[in-house]
Amino acid sequence: MRDPFSAIESALAGELDDPGNVDTRIDHGRQSRTGIPEVVYGDSKTDDQLIAACRSLLERLPRAIVSRIAADRAARIALTIGGDVRVEHPYSERTAVLVRGDACPPDERGFVAILTAGTSDLTVAGEAATLAREIGCRVEIVADVGVAGLHRLVQPLRRIVAGGADVIIVAAGMDGALPSVVSGLVDIPVIGLPTSVGYGVAAGGNAALMTMLSTCAPGMAVVNIDNGVGAGATAGLIALRAHQVRD
Amino acid sequence: MRDPFSAIESALAGELDDPGNVDTRIDHGRQSRTGIPEVVYGDSKTDDQLIAACRSLLERLPRAIVSRIAADRAARIALTIGGDVRVEHPYSERTAVLVRGDACPPDERGFVAILTAGTSDLTVAGEAATLAREIGCRVEIVADVGVAGLHRLVQPLRRIVAGGADVIIVAAGMDGALPSVVSGLVDIPVIGLPTSVGYGVAAGGNAALMTMLSTCAPGMAVVNIDNGVGAGATAGLIALRAHQVRD
Amino acid sequence: MRDPFSAIESALAGELDDPGNVDTRIDHGRQSRTGIPEVVYGDSKTDDQLIAACRSLLERLPRAIVSRIAADRAARIALTIGGDVRVEHPYSERTAVLVRGDACPPDERGFVAILTAGTSDLTVAGEAATLAREIGCRVEIVADVGVAGLHRLVQPLRRIVAGGADVIIVAAGMDGALPSVVSGLVDIPVIGLPTSVGYGVAAGGNAALMTMLSTCAPGMAVVNIDNGVGAGATAGLIALRAHQVRD
Amino acid sequence: MRDPFSAIESALAGELDDPGNVDTRIDHGRQSRTGIPEVVYGDSKTDDQLIAACRSLLERLPRAIVSRIAADRAARIALTIGGDVRVEHPYSERTAVLVRGDACPPDERGFVAILTAGTSDLTVAGEAATLAREIGCRVEIVADVGVAGLHRLVQPLRRIVAGGADVIIVAAGMDGALPSVVSGLVDIPVIGLPTSVGYGVAAGGNAALMTMLSTCAPGMAVVNIDNGVGAGATAGLIALRAHQVRD
Amino acid sequence: MRDPFSAIESALAGELDDPGNVDTRIDHGRQSRTGIPEVVYGDSKTDDQLIAACRSLLERLPRAIVSRIAADRAARIALTIGGDVRVEHPYSERTAVLVRGDACPPDERGFVAILTAGTSDLTVAGEAATLAREIGCRVEIVADVGVAGLHRLVQPLRRIVAGGADVIIVAAGMDGALPSVVSGLVDIPVIGLPTSVGYGVAAGGNAALMTMLSTCAPGMAVVNIDNGVGAGATAGLIALRAHQVRD
Amino acid sequence: MRDPFSAIESALAGELDDPGNVDTRIDHGRQSRTGIPEVVYGDSKTDDQLIAACRSLLERLPRAIVSRIAADRAARIALTIGGDVRVEHPYSERTAVLVRGDACPPDERGFVAILTAGTSDLTVAGEAATLAREIGCRVEIVADVGVAGLHRLVQPLRRIVAGGADVIIVAAGMDGALPSVVSGLVDIPVIGLPTSVGYGVAAGGNAALMTMLSTCAPGMAVVNIDNGVGAGATAGLIALRAHQVRD
Amino acid sequence: MRDPFSAIESALAGELDDPGNVDTRIDHGRQSRTGIPEVVYGDSKTDDQLIAACRSLLERLPRAIVSRIAADRAARIALTIGGDVRVEHPYSERTAVLVRGDACPPDERGFVAILTAGTSDLTVAGEAATLAREIGCRVEIVADVGVAGLHRLVQPLRRIVAGGADVIIVAAGMDGALPSVVSGLVDIPVIGLPTSVGYGVAAGGNAALMTMLSTCAPGMAVVNIDNGVGAGATAGLIALRAHQVRD
Amino acid sequence: MRDPFSAIESALAGELDDPGNVDTRIDHGRQSRTGIPEVVYGDSKTDDQLIAACRSLLERLPRAIVSRIAADRAARIALTIGGDVRVEHPYSERTAVLVRGDACPPDERGFVAILTAGTSDLTVAGEAATLAREIGCRVEIVADVGVAGLHRLVQPLRRIVAGGADVIIVAAGMDGALPSVVSGLVDIPVIGLPTSVGYGVAAGGNAALMTMLSTCAPGMAVVNIDNGVGAGATAGLIALRAHQVRD
Repeated sequence: MRDPFSAIESALAGELDDPGNVDTRIDHGRQSRTGIPEVVYGDSKTDDQLIAACRSLLERLPRAIVSRIAADRAARIALTIGGDVRVEHPYSERTAVLVRGDACPPDERGFVAILTAGTSDLTVAGEAATLAREIGCRVEIVADVGVAGLHRLVQPLRRIVAGGADVIIVAAGMDGALPSVVSGLVDIPVIGLPTSVGYGVAAGGNAALMTMLSTCAPGMAVVNIDNGVGAGATAGLIALRAHQVRD
Repeated sequence: MRDPFSAIESALAGELDDPGNVDTRIDHGRQSRTGIPEVVYGDSKTDDQLIAACRSLLERLPRAIVSRIAADRAARIALTIGGDVRVEHPYSERTAVLVRGDACPPDERGFVAILTAGTSDLTVAGEAATLAREIGCRVEIVADVGVAGLHRLVQPLRRIVAGGADVIIVAAGMDGALPSVVSGLVDIPVIGLPTSVGYGVAAGGNAALMTMLSTCAPGMAVVNIDNGVGAGATAGLIALRAHQVRD
Repeated sequence: MRDPFSAIESALAGELDDPGNVDTRIDHGRQSRTGIPEVVYGDSKTDDQLIAACRSLLERLPRAIVSRIAADRAARIALTIGGDVRVEHPYSERTAVLVRGDACPPDERGFVAILTAGTSDLTVAGEAATLAREIGCRVEIVADVGVAGLHRLVQPLRRIVAGGADVIIVAAGMDGALPSVVSGLVDIPVIGLPTSVGYGVAAGGNAALMTMLSTCAPGMAVVNIDNGVGAGATAGLIALRAHQVRD
Repeated sequence: MRDPFSAIESALAGELDDPGNVDTRIDHGRQSRTGIPEVVYGDSKTDDQLIAACRSLLERLPRAIVSRIAADRAARIALTIGGDVRVEHPYSERTAVLVRGDACPPDERGFVAILTAGTSDLTVAGEAATLAREIGCRVEIVADVGVAGLHRLVQPLRRIVAGGADVIIVAAGMDGALPSVVSGLVDIPVIGLPTSVGYGVAAGGNAALMTMLSTCAPGMAVVNIDNGVGAGATAGLIALRAHQVRD
Repeated sequence: MRDPFSAIESALAGELDDPGNVDTRIDHGRQSRTGIPEVVYGDSKTDDQLIAACRSLLERLPRAIVSRIAADRAARIALTIGGDVRVEHPYSERTAVLVRGDACPPDERGFVAILTAGTSDLTVAGEAATLAREIGCRVEIVADVGVAGLHRLVQPLRRIVAGGADVIIVAAGMDGALPSVVSGLVDIPVIGLPTSVGYGVAAGGNAALMTMLSTCAPGMAVVNIDNGVGAGATAGLIALRAHQVRD
Repeated sequence: MRDPFSAIESALAGELDDPGNVDTRIDHGRQSRTGIPEVVYGDSKTDDQLIAACRSLLERLPRAIVSRIAADRAARIALTIGGDVRVEHPYSERTAVLVRGDACPPDERGFVAILTAGTSDLTVAGEAATLAREIGCRVEIVADVGVAGLHRLVQPLRRIVAGGADVIIVAAGMDGALPSVVSGLVDIPVIGLPTSVGYGVAAGGNAALMTMLSTCAPGMAVVNIDNGVGAGATAGLIALRAHQVRD
Repeated sequence: MRDPFSAIESALAGELDDPGNVDTRIDHGRQSRTGIPEVVYGDSKTDDQLIAACRSLLERLPRAIVSRIAADRAARIALTIGGDVRVEHPYSERTAVLVRGDACPPDERGFVAILTAGTSDLTVAGEAATLAREIGCRVEIVADVGVAGLHRLVQPLRRIVAGGADVIIVAAGMDGALPSVVSGLVDIPVIGLPTSVGYGVAAGGNAALMTMLSTCAPGMAVVNIDNGVGAGATAGLIALRAHQVRD
Repeated sequence: MRDPFSAIESALAGELDDPGNVDTRIDHGRQSRTGIPEVVYGDSKTDDQLIAACRSLLERLPRAIVSRIAADRAARIALTIGGDVRVEHPYSERTAVLVRGDACPPDERGFVAILTAGTSDLTVAGEAATLAREIGCRVEIVADVGVAGLHRLVQPLRRIVAGGADVIIVAAGMDGALPSVVSGLVDIPVIGLPTSVGYGVAAGGNAALMTMLSTCAPGMAVVNIDNGVGAGATAGLIALRAHQVRD
């Protein structure tokens, strides 16, 4: 049994090094504490800050996730870190995994299904998929099954349910109506993932977020707009939990 | 052929009486000009202002619509006006029709269908129904067929389409997702009518409004939150137009 | 294996009765389809509508949940329905369960823990607890452990983790900071439940909602402000899933 | 008589191919089901996604509409698709129609009039015009007749009414006041089309949208800001309906 | 020639009494400094505070304006103050003038015209009228000439222009479109006065305010929602200025 | 005496040419009708549309104002129009006046004073100054006298009052507090001109706008954020009115 | 030297009692840890919860602050608690101090000055005064010195500065401009306290809050709308710090 | 004893030069009046305006702070001013200090500690540090100790408290939860400094601002988003005050 306060106790006992006056304090214990690996947020960090963060992570872990980073920037960072570090983009151009040598993601111990309402939601859905996969889940993405053509949802959703999905992430921009429809059809927890795809009152994803929060279909919870990391991580925890119990 | 500027021309020619310094200027020509009867908005008017407006309308028309008025207030107003004026509430407690004698609504020359996502949307849906009926359309309301249980929509929507509806009003609060789903299934124009039913981010109807405006299903337009008058009037114009052409 | 579209197929085949022109269409198949019982939303329904809905539910189910209903109103409704129907308020004055005879809630097959930041969040937390319990989970509520006095969190959170909680609901108004702190400490999925407790920019719960959505701690998803039903139902599904796998 | 659920029934019967793990699922049945052709939304799609979508559409249809696409991008896409595919911009640089050979738009069976308050609203008005024309309506656009100089409205509106318009789209940014004025003058349904033209509180079109939703003139419904597709499609459905009945 | 800083100079020289620790510091010099009498804001003051403020004003001035006060409360306050103080409501129930003896408002030295879009805007328009009249202007109010029936505007506006109005206040709720239309027709400065009359997105007057601020018709400025005091005072200053120059 | 409806009467009588299907309908009668010259809004117009509008104006008027236009774009437009047309920027780089030959602005018949809170507000203040000057007023601008250093206001404000200003425009971004302070010191009407200068909650000028609308100092009205055209035009009308009366 | 984590260490060591399943966990160590006494928030607590909280506090402390409580409710609570407990309202009807016997507030060791823009801001200012006094500071309140009559500010502000105030709280609703003006005049830290006094865009205090946050005068920080507790507590800490250093 | 109105008195006495019609009026007396040096805001000023402002400052002061300026622009400005003026960036690339010769910042007379939740908050934290240091305080910055990994906070916060910090600035974007946690642990005043780091509902810093304003931990006040100048200046005043008293 893990104690949620063990890291704080270590810090209070002075057993953790205080790295002093540095820009970035990597939380190396995050994965063992919360089950979710530390993710480096690429936006609004300088290259130096990014490199320092990734180096620090890769000293202890074989794979390091960097979100919100352009593919060429990720390649440049990997090159600078050097050694046997290379870049993978398993599901989305915008989400990189820096890998030491030929380290693989963990074995698959749960099933996270991901639906998107439109084609443009795939970038964010891919961020969620990366997180869920790196946590150790099987992932399946089905794109472009929005409510304006409900018949497109039938075969994919049947396949997902029959496949034993532990949780379904539904990504949608614009009116964000798909998650409610799915949640009204299945007995599987749904994570609504609003995306910033849209214009007018839907610009920035706010309409999609409000729709999902206002759902009449209980059995669904929501994350921030474009927060693929949060959706994938939460879904991963849910799926792993089912697996842990199963073992 | 009607000239849209005839009333203005009359006014410019001094042919319309300027009633001088009064509180209310009833637009008696509205129905002949726009096809929609003048509706007296009950909220934030004093009893005296309401009575004056209704009296003025009933001098020229057999039936006068008053929106957003409690049933007992409507009864009191009718009593004060006196004569053979009585109150009808054809579809909703909150929407009254003051009637001179046994005057009937106009013959039915078009078909306006109204769906509601929940039971609580019926008050606003009834306001829309009253307008459409007083304009001269057949009206059918089907309640409580929201997206959290899509199967409930099947039989009513089939019946409406088979019945030859000219336009469908879809009233919904909370996530407001139903109009998009309906609009993706039919080739009939849809009027989204957001209602103020909801709480949290859905309080006041704003989430429902944003969802409807953000729809991916073209073929739908939207009115203000709780604006049953606008939905019913627009739907009535659409249905009448089909009928006028038909004749 | 359940087919998510079976109810729609039945409807398309004409096998479901269309109840015709009624105000409320109870979704009797909801629990078997989604694992979550139909909840009657008390606000903005008339007494007649409420009674009809509850009667319809109690014809097929032994226990019917009514949310957002004052205790005396619930008692009056139960009395009107009559027979052996009585009211329970297992966790909150505002959330009633109408019970036929001595019907008990389902056996406990999962563990949902609920934390609240303040005393005033208990009403909404109790709504969540009712849902989780009626779905079939063990529930434990710990109140008033907000971030302004973090030491209060230590013993309850240790007990919850040691007890094997499958999911933690964290209810908070005002700044809504508690769920992030909890989510950064545990490897259990967290449901953030913002409440409308607060004033100034926190009035209505919007600040708490925005804080929770903006969390830096992945592993948390959020429901609408005051949406205890959604939090309890989603948590229940997560906990049941672990249990189903276990069996 | 068309059944709105026929596509869903086909899907449930397994009669629709599930294209598997692809980015875009073109809704080929949309036009036969809803009367409105599938429109490819150009924004936030990659070139590869756009080409795949257009190819798929042009395999079954002679003309494919792409909205929100720069003229040079549209030309590049057409060149890549090759064969006898070429680009038309019937009303607006930002809205393209990819055409196979010399395929023409459908015959004109209804009359959609479009007014704009200012010169800058023409881009969005052109998008609406394209939709209405491709659905099969005659279109007339009159620009720059905003309320700051009401006399400019007289001759165009008279001509439109005399010409028998079935519906009027009124596009306006800034204060968005023109649609209300028009709707108070005619007995034809009006679609308010707010545009993002403006600055200060009018930036992004929000003021125009709120004005149109708040109109005192019943007989008008509104679409999302800059949603020329929705305005044109809804207007087209209304105009076609009149025509269908006429036949 | 008046020095705008004379009161500050007196205060710096210690020539103004500091009344010490009191709740209310009446600005007795306001009218001589700014041309506008001090107005006592009735809302959120206790009776004791109101009485103290009015007493203090009436010691030096024959007439004291109290805004946002119910008629019966105003009567009670006047009775408590006693002496020969009585209440007048020259234009609106909600705006009182406490009068010592038979003191009259100042002579009329300018002409402020006031238009309202609807009947319900009269309360706020009356507050503006009271201010303008107490400053020393002639006032004319014309009600219910909104844009949904433009012909109603013709005769009143002609009369106002011919009468030589120095400024026109236009009060409107809902879509707030009337001030733009008026401002596009006349060469007289217009003060837009948004009112809180409305519902849905127009609730609270925000839509009307945004419309007026977004006007395409230069020549108009706007005050806060329901701020009849500000509209009347500003209009009064404008009209007096014309008069001062004239003399 | 001018009739506000004369242009509409001409249009109704068919005496105005309908230019047919063109992008821009210049309102040539605007200045004679409203006292304010037509201003061409440069943003979101194509070069062709701008040139057409300016050409049309310069056919009848010697000077044409173009707002929101970069200096080099204005030069290019003037060059294309050719003839003896040249560009002036009397007060701000962003506001151009296209001038035929050596045509001068009208004689000065009123005094508009302009204060700015900061240096960065000068661009917008210059737009207001241009309008006021082209209408025929004397203009004086005093910059950078915001409330964070109130002593800076003393000498300029004394000079303005002593000089007989008919109206004072006060431009401010950030907290927008300066107009209230000025309005509390003088008996001259004040036009609050919020600017988009600021960051955080002040970004875009919304905080400044709200402050000005919420002022406790009656005697002030407000225009849209960055709406120098509206502020200058309204101030010009006010100042001219005083002058007209004087004559 | 105090360790900020001592309470957490005690909790981790199991030295703090976990009171089990109770509604309220009074943070008895708050004053020793943060210098600020625990304040019981009266709103949205039941009487039972309030009584339990106050009893618990008064077992260890001689004086207990209850905010946002009506005077008669406070009296009723004190009566129920009984013993020698009585109620004081040192500065505001809405803020109570429950006192055991004749216990006095702490000695005065710092000077907190409080200014209000209007009379109606006194309720919130009184809440701030209560906190500052109970923490152990001398308090002086000066009311109704808003920017619409700046001369009223001169004598009070001079007296406050000469008296050696350690910090100035400035409470204002409506436009909230006073704190910026004060902060531009003094070298003393200013706490801006926005109040919910206002209407239109100022309703709820949002305009005042935005003005204060947008201030150009550095040296000021802001608390939530109506948060007298936070303003008084922060000011108290600042004043005490100066005193601690002094000793 | 300093008189807050001395500058105004000088201005009223005509003892301050009015620089006439210039763009920028440097407030040279600000530091002696308010304890805070004038800061030149770099954004939205032209190079000429910036140079004039800095020249004017450096004529009387040895060091001039310029905020929101790119490093290369600052270098260019310094070069243009010439003489012995050079640029320093003590804590952040975006905040420059122009220095005459080898002038040093003032001696350290107080201790301002600065914490940041993430690495990306350092730019804004550096602006605050610059202000506090230039006012005359010792500054210590600790980065990346956000609530998602609370143990990282332990050692730095202990060191800060033990070191005798007079005030703690806590900078955070995203959920902005860190300041509440810190404020609940210490008896030192906390300044919450929200940053614009974030996306979705956290974009622009609004979520962080709302969280901080809504804090349940009294003892904290907040400045505008990204307002490092305000945070540093207020903290500096607080720390100096303690020092002044100490001496």
